[in-house]
Amino acid sequence: MAAIMENSLPTEGQGAKIILGEPVQKGYFYGYEGIVLHEEGGEQAILVLENPFWGRVLFINGTAQFTSRDEFIYHEALIHIPIQAFPEGRVKRVLICGGGDFGAAREALKYPEVEEVLIADIDPRVPEVVKRFFPELLPSNLEDPRLKLLTVDAFKLVRELVDQGQKFDLVVIDSTDPDISTSDFTLELSHSLFSEEFHRLLKALAPQGAIVQQAATPFTMKNILEGSFKIFRKVYPAEEVFCYRASIPSFGGDNAYLLRFPGDPTCPQKSQVPETKYYTHAVHRASFALPKFWLTEVLKGEG
Amino acid sequence: MAAIMENSLPTEGQGAKIILGEPVQKGYFYGYEGIVLHEEGGEQAILVLENPFWGRVLFINGTAQFTSRDEFIYHEALIHIPIQAFPEGRVKRVLICGGGDFGAAREALKYPEVEEVLIADIDPRVPEVVKRFFPELLPSNLEDPRLKLLTVDAFKLVRELVDQGQKFDLVVIDSTDPDISTSDFTLELSHSLFSEEFHRLLKALAPQGAIVQQAATPFTMKNILEGSFKIFRKVYPAEEVFCYRASIPSFGGDNAYLLRFPGDPTCPQKSQVPETKYYTHAVHRASFALPKFWLTEVLKGEG
Repeated sequence: MAAIMENSLPTEGQGAKIILGEPVQKGYFYGYEGIVLHEEGGEQAILVLENPFWGRVLFINGTAQFTSRDEFIYHEALIHIPIQAFPEGRVKRVLICGGGDFGAAREALKYPEVEEVLIADIDPRVPEVVKRFFPELLPSNLEDPRLKLLTVDAFKLVRELVDQGQKFDLVVIDSTDPDISTSDFTLELSHSLFSEEFHRLLKALAPQGAIVQQAATPFTMKNILEGSFKIFRKVYPAEEVFCYRASIPSFGGDNAYLLRFPGDPTCPQKSQVPETKYYTHAVHRASFALPKFWLTEVLKGEG
Repeated sequence: MAAIMENSLPTEGQGAKIILGEPVQKGYFYGYEGIVLHEEGGEQAILVLENPFWGRVLFINGTAQFTSRDEFIYHEALIHIPIQAFPEGRVKRVLICGGGDFGAAREALKYPEVEEVLIADIDPRVPEVVKRFFPELLPSNLEDPRLKLLTVDAFKLVRELVDQGQKFDLVVIDSTDPDISTSDFTLELSHSLFSEEFHRLLKALAPQGAIVQQAATPFTMKNILEGSFKIFRKVYPAEEVFCYRASIPSFGGDNAYLLRFPGDPTCPQKSQVPETKYYTHAVHRASFALPKFWLTEVLKGEG
């Protein structure tokens, strides 16, 4: 997960033309030519690139997080599948762990039944950068009284919410990928959001709710889905654990989502779908059909 | 579709270590580090690269055609969906236009009901390169008497077969992508296999058969699916035209396949599935659920 490839031009701050190589796997990278619109360091190094094809791309620590051109696929799959799997009126309180880019909140707020969307993101700079460079990710009304943004470690917040006896209908884990170069997921900021301890807290926070976690692209990062699936199966009853997918071009193919759902989420229960560009009821049903090699090599026959 | 990026090292023949950039879209490319195993020029310039992640990759005119690591997804979706959509025993004669890499034939030959698989590829070098560098693409028995390989322009062959009154149950158009830099698909060898004239011949060759065409990745090459869909809708009755997809990592996401099918191909009719790594009956049914933006922006609401 190095930031810039050896063969790329050095970044020279705002306005510089660069070729940025995003390492995907050993000997394979995505190359983006573009103009640096914004750059800042820190524990999570942020870079916004303007690219002729993708539009704007947000990189955190050298890894593309989303692009203006295809973020809708990632966010619609993340939110509409769990919400549509519930009958009308069932999803009132939504907690988004990570998701400071507002994309997940934007989708959740499309449902009038949703009374509260709480975003807990540790990095206050992500929402600021999105407000400035990615207006399309913002909800139609950023002053929507249902929306609350907290700059906080989601793990700590969840522990507090559990201590307070609060309950949520949907918890969304919309984090950066954990580092896969170590086997214990310890290096990146988001690591605690993949832990067993975190899911035990979530189970208490949403005893009858849905819990969805983005679990990366198994073709290139198999151990994220593999490891997260084991934790889901350890914490939740087997019949409540599901996996679905969405093909996201800037991620290089199918992204995996793990879902704890109290019931059968494979058929949408709502009659109406808000305005979307990717999601339909047919896509919803199709998302749960997994390639055979995911079942045999990653989920070990337990999808 | 230039062969090598400016920023890559020059190739220096067999054994050279190179970084090859495959342009995907304006300002966006895939970068492969690797060792050149084989290289030859000609109308279709061929390069075989050994890459630490993808295994071996075949490039034709600088565009990756397939990799050892994910070719199975492309070929299984191409073949098993049309064959499984027919009832048992219905697919006897299969014609593959292009497909000199044997991958499509390998899948079709898994069905005992298939009595003949005829590959018509214009370039005799592709089968030779595959035999040497991609043994996994070959059918389990290359001497299978059902398999015939002709070095011939598939367009001309189809015209002759039609003149002879021959009939096929399945025709597979497994070609390189047409050039999308011109609007009339005229620059690449495979262009005639996307034409209306070709499909009128196929309609005569397979009056009750299935005709499947790989139609590229619409996210980056929208006009290939758009143009091919118009031709399908012009030549075949609307109720016989279908589109399905498979997510292929080395193609950067969902690849489109257009299918002319006499009936409903969305549910598999066979009870058994041969050994596969991607295809299952659930995947078959799911493949026909298309992202909303394909319907509204590419297939214009007529998927």
